Amino acid sequence: MKKNNMEYIIVVGCGRTGSHLANLLSKAGKSVVIIDKEEKKFQKLSEEFSGFMLEADAIEIDVLEQAKIAKADVLITAAADDSTNMMIAQVATKIYEVPLVLARVIDPAEIPVYEALEIQIISPTILSAQLLYELIVGKHKEEK
Amino acid sequence: MKKNNMEYIIVVGCGRTGSHLANLLSKAGKSVVIIDKEEKKFQKLSEEFSGFMLEADAIEIDVLEQAKIAKADVLITAAADDSTNMMIAQVATKIYEVPLVLARVIDPAEIPVYEALEIQIISPTILSAQLLYELIVGKHKEEK
Repeated sequence: MKKNNMEYIIVVGCGRTGSHLANLLSKAGKSVVIIDKEEKKFQKLSEEFSGFMLEADAIEIDVLEQAKIAKADVLITAAADDSTNMMIAQVATKIYEVPLVLARVIDPAEIPVYEALEIQIISPTILSAQLLYELIVGKHKEEK
Repeated sequence: MKKNNMEYIIVVGCGRTGSHLANLLSKAGKSVVIIDKEEKKFQKLSEEFSGFMLEADAIEIDVLEQAKIAKADVLITAAADDSTNMMIAQVATKIYEVPLVLARVIDPAEIPVYEALEIQIISPTILSAQLLYELIVGKHKEEK
């Protein structure tokens, strides 16, 4: 029962990554709910952010229900710690069958665990290292 | 006076990003020196890592000299805090004129400062948010 075929996206964690992403999605006209335990984190959202802010702990199922997780097309979990993200990603995938679930993973050592659970992840560490590597190897390629 | 035209690369910080990058560069046959204050951080390096490990604080010019910064083709600074990275990146750029200097920046709010100093940066936060955005917008594009 989606209105106007508009994506409904839940972002867990309004830290640097969560807030930046929520701003991008809102600007692109998506329907966004962002959840964070601390109200002050919402200050990172731009003035143009048109989504809904929910000050609560997303580790509680009730909070995810309040955010209408059953209707969500996408859930991104980018809370401060990896274990919270893993728990929320599992709930979203296994219980609510959210079509697209993405978890931000801080510690690359945790990646195999996510892979075993078939949860799609983003690792800022690996992304950065790979881009740095490409910049270095690309830059010096011509000189050989 | 480079031997065999091989790139000489200094990596500051053997945290998650620094160690992952150093492993990639070493595997690609680059000559790598990695600097970290804490010896235990070097445990993150793979067994195949063939570079040199320097247990010292790269914020000290003497340490950078010891790492032969004047001969470096590339310096990447990925220490734990942004201000250390900014200081080292400036020293490498302005004093030693290292041809390619890249700084990892944790807090996106610091990015304009780096830009003013003309230091090339990598922001894991922005990289992650952008990749997440592409995954979400790309995924649902077909459904419209």
